Amino acid sequence: MLEIQLSELDAVIRRAADAAPFLRTVEGNALADLLDGIAAALTAAKAEIVPVAMRETHLPEARLNGECDRTAGQFRNHAVDVRAGRFKQVDSVTAIPDRTPPRPRISRFMIPLGPVAVFGASNFPLAYSVAGGDTASALAAGCPVVVKAHPAHPETSRMVADIVSAQVKSLGFPEGTFQCVHGDNSVSLGLVEHPLIKGVGFTGSLRVGRLLMDAAAKRPVPIPVFAEMGSVNPIFVLPGGVAGFADGYIPSLTLGVGQFCTNPGIVLGIDSPEWTAAKVRMQELAVAAPAGKMLTPWIEESYVRLAQSTCRQEGVTTLVEVQNPGQAGLAEVSGAEFIKNSHLQEEVFGPFGLIVTCKSFDEMLACVGTQGNLSSSIHFGEGDQHLVEILLPPVEQIAGRIVFNGFPTGVEVCEATQHGGPYPASSDVRFTSVGNHAPERWLRPVAYQNAPDFVTAGL
Amino acid sequence: MLEIQLSELDAVIRRAADAAPFLRTVEGNALADLLDGIAAALTAAKAEIVPVAMRETHLPEARLNGECDRTAGQFRNHAVDVRAGRFKQVDSVTAIPDRTPPRPRISRFMIPLGPVAVFGASNFPLAYSVAGGDTASALAAGCPVVVKAHPAHPETSRMVADIVSAQVKSLGFPEGTFQCVHGDNSVSLGLVEHPLIKGVGFTGSLRVGRLLMDAAAKRPVPIPVFAEMGSVNPIFVLPGGVAGFADGYIPSLTLGVGQFCTNPGIVLGIDSPEWTAAKVRMQELAVAAPAGKMLTPWIEESYVRLAQSTCRQEGVTTLVEVQNPGQAGLAEVSGAEFIKNSHLQEEVFGPFGLIVTCKSFDEMLACVGTQGNLSSSIHFGEGDQHLVEILLPPVEQIAGRIVFNGFPTGVEVCEATQHGGPYPASSDVRFTSVGNHAPERWLRPVAYQNAPDFVTAGL
Repeated sequence: MLEIQLSELDAVIRRAADAAPFLRTVEGNALADLLDGIAAALTAAKAEIVPVAMRETHLPEARLNGECDRTAGQFRNHAVDVRAGRFKQVDSVTAIPDRTPPRPRISRFMIPLGPVAVFGASNFPLAYSVAGGDTASALAAGCPVVVKAHPAHPETSRMVADIVSAQVKSLGFPEGTFQCVHGDNSVSLGLVEHPLIKGVGFTGSLRVGRLLMDAAAKRPVPIPVFAEMGSVNPIFVLPGGVAGFADGYIPSLTLGVGQFCTNPGIVLGIDSPEWTAAKVRMQELAVAAPAGKMLTPWIEESYVRLAQSTCRQEGVTTLVEVQNPGQAGLAEVSGAEFIKNSHLQEEVFGPFGLIVTCKSFDEMLACVGTQGNLSSSIHFGEGDQHLVEILLPPVEQIAGRIVFNGFPTGVEVCEATQHGGPYPASSDVRFTSVGNHAPERWLRPVAYQNAPDFVTAGL
Repeated sequence: MLEIQLSELDAVIRRAADAAPFLRTVEGNALADLLDGIAAALTAAKAEIVPVAMRETHLPEARLNGECDRTAGQFRNHAVDVRAGRFKQVDSVTAIPDRTPPRPRISRFMIPLGPVAVFGASNFPLAYSVAGGDTASALAAGCPVVVKAHPAHPETSRMVADIVSAQVKSLGFPEGTFQCVHGDNSVSLGLVEHPLIKGVGFTGSLRVGRLLMDAAAKRPVPIPVFAEMGSVNPIFVLPGGVAGFADGYIPSLTLGVGQFCTNPGIVLGIDSPEWTAAKVRMQELAVAAPAGKMLTPWIEESYVRLAQSTCRQEGVTTLVEVQNPGQAGLAEVSGAEFIKNSHLQEEVFGPFGLIVTCKSFDEMLACVGTQGNLSSSIHFGEGDQHLVEILLPPVEQIAGRIVFNGFPTGVEVCEATQHGGPYPASSDVRFTSVGNHAPERWLRPVAYQNAPDFVTAGL
């Protein structure tokens, strides 16, 4: 795999900047054709891509086939909106010449932000990587993209990049429309700090995400960063929601070896005989869950270390010990101890669940805290309506998506998707990285005042 | 005037946070009634407010009367949108239970960000101050507001704050809905750094704006800042736009003693006999323009110092010297010198214009550069269409609003307003601080997945 040197990065970014004026003015149907072309080419190459991705990520074939479809689907979704001109969001007022003062004619509409740097994630080698949601949404917004491929799946990245670049070329778009580089951390920072880069999309760890946020904020000209980072996605189980909960929870916790940003790492319930029975059932199911191969040796090592570290915290009881990577783990702590120890809210990336047993609903309420999440879920039943009404307002403050009687894994990609939440779930709670609204991150408004017809004709 | 101590700030912000749940769920019509009530009360008190503002700011009565109307108008504008539910922006998908996998029912909609800190500007004691655009838009979004009053007009601030607070109280909103504090820089930073503050609105200098941006970015939990800062608002005069230009330009440059963020501080033309004649006319008009009293002694001192410093730069010819504060000034420099010296693009707050005479259209193009502005204007005439088409794309990259054959002062407040531009004009080019879209800065999406009817009924 060819790694780029920092010295070569400038030429790459200049090519992206050179493509920006073309993308700013290209006709919507032509841009949509590119998005549809990429979708079709990805789907056509699925049988070649998936085996390579399987080898590099240890993810199973069915999952990667589905992920490839989702990846193509994101491009198709955006193509529909681009064809409909939905991202232009034109707002106009007509002139009122005889008003005092006269009102000018004004049109406000959205234009692309400019070249966007995208950082692929390790856990979605297709849907959040080279041709993932950030790339699809930035292209849909008319922004040239420079992707920094994730080192965990370089061959998959190369194959996908070649597919996208071939579409760019065959449909007559400039080469700088899409480029993919491989490199070390100096290349990552070099991208974020380059004056011609106007926005950053990142999916990954809080540590790296915050590093890029800080680098972007310190630039002479700061730029927006949408970083999707850690999340523990707490589930609150009210008394009426306990029955059957365990049988839904453990499959969600262990799906994809727990390597989802939406993985529900914390479960909170209220002490009762039913809750005790549910814990026994969760324990049985976690023990029985087959261990899976994780994405990278680093993730394996980190999973075991963090799970074991959680189990060693004050007041934590190990229910299912994590001895090997990819093996499901469970631990329990009281609400009182959970509130005292913020370490217990740190994400353990993998199939590890921390059960928080509260002595009362009030203690559960106090456990909601303030740490942001992509999602939070509430399980309830008959008779819990009043408790839901009390719990929902604070839960809404810590999450971007609230799931009722369901599990957060499995994100529906549509016009109602919100994938982003209060920090540290994402860097800017006002946007989403998934779904039809994702391109809004890469658009900015301009207003034309009293523009002549030959200018407005081109809008 | 009672100054708040840093130690008292926490209680103020906690009151704001305590008001947030009420504002999150208050019925749209009740919130709109508050906005309309504030508008009516401001208008009713105009005769009392304006004389105080005149004394504190030296701005003329007619201007302040107009500004008071505009300030009330902003509340009324937002009230219309709040009543119509326009800020909720609901996007829903229905459940498809028999799909594989089943699609859940999802509703995505906007909720308030939470308590917002607002910093008033010195140059608009009403429209960008205590009850200015940031306050109006944050309240319209359902966010509690803590305003830090600008020390340049403390009495005006107190009067306006009392009017807003009285409406808050009489309409049954919690006290923390709106609060105004006076204090020093430690209070400003204390506001931006407080964990319960979720967003910041600022209008003022680049130096202070950047300081607040940096403080917000360094928080353990970074928060969005919309800072509207410096802008030189360059005007490009093409050959067909020279005739009559001077007679429009000097009144715009000297309007309000040049103390507008939209003040056109730089004018670029192409050398020709007509351009030379226009310069002579600009010079005549600038000499004839009456000197005005500026807002504060600090602004007066700074205006004279910066204007004189510009005139001392390499290659700059003084056309009308600034000897006294509030007096119009003009200088000229060649395009070649302008490109070389970035100091010449720094804002001189006041009625000082720098004329850049380019030797060709190509040199004018090279002068566009990359520094961001709130606005840029293009003056053109018959036969200039081709030049406009070449000039517009780079100009669009440096501005949020483009004015054709007009002047940037006098911002129309409507649904098509864009008041914000590439840095340093504003901190985030994706938003506007003026107009119907301003509340979008203070909203965030949440998605409810499979919410029960008793929850969705409250949406």
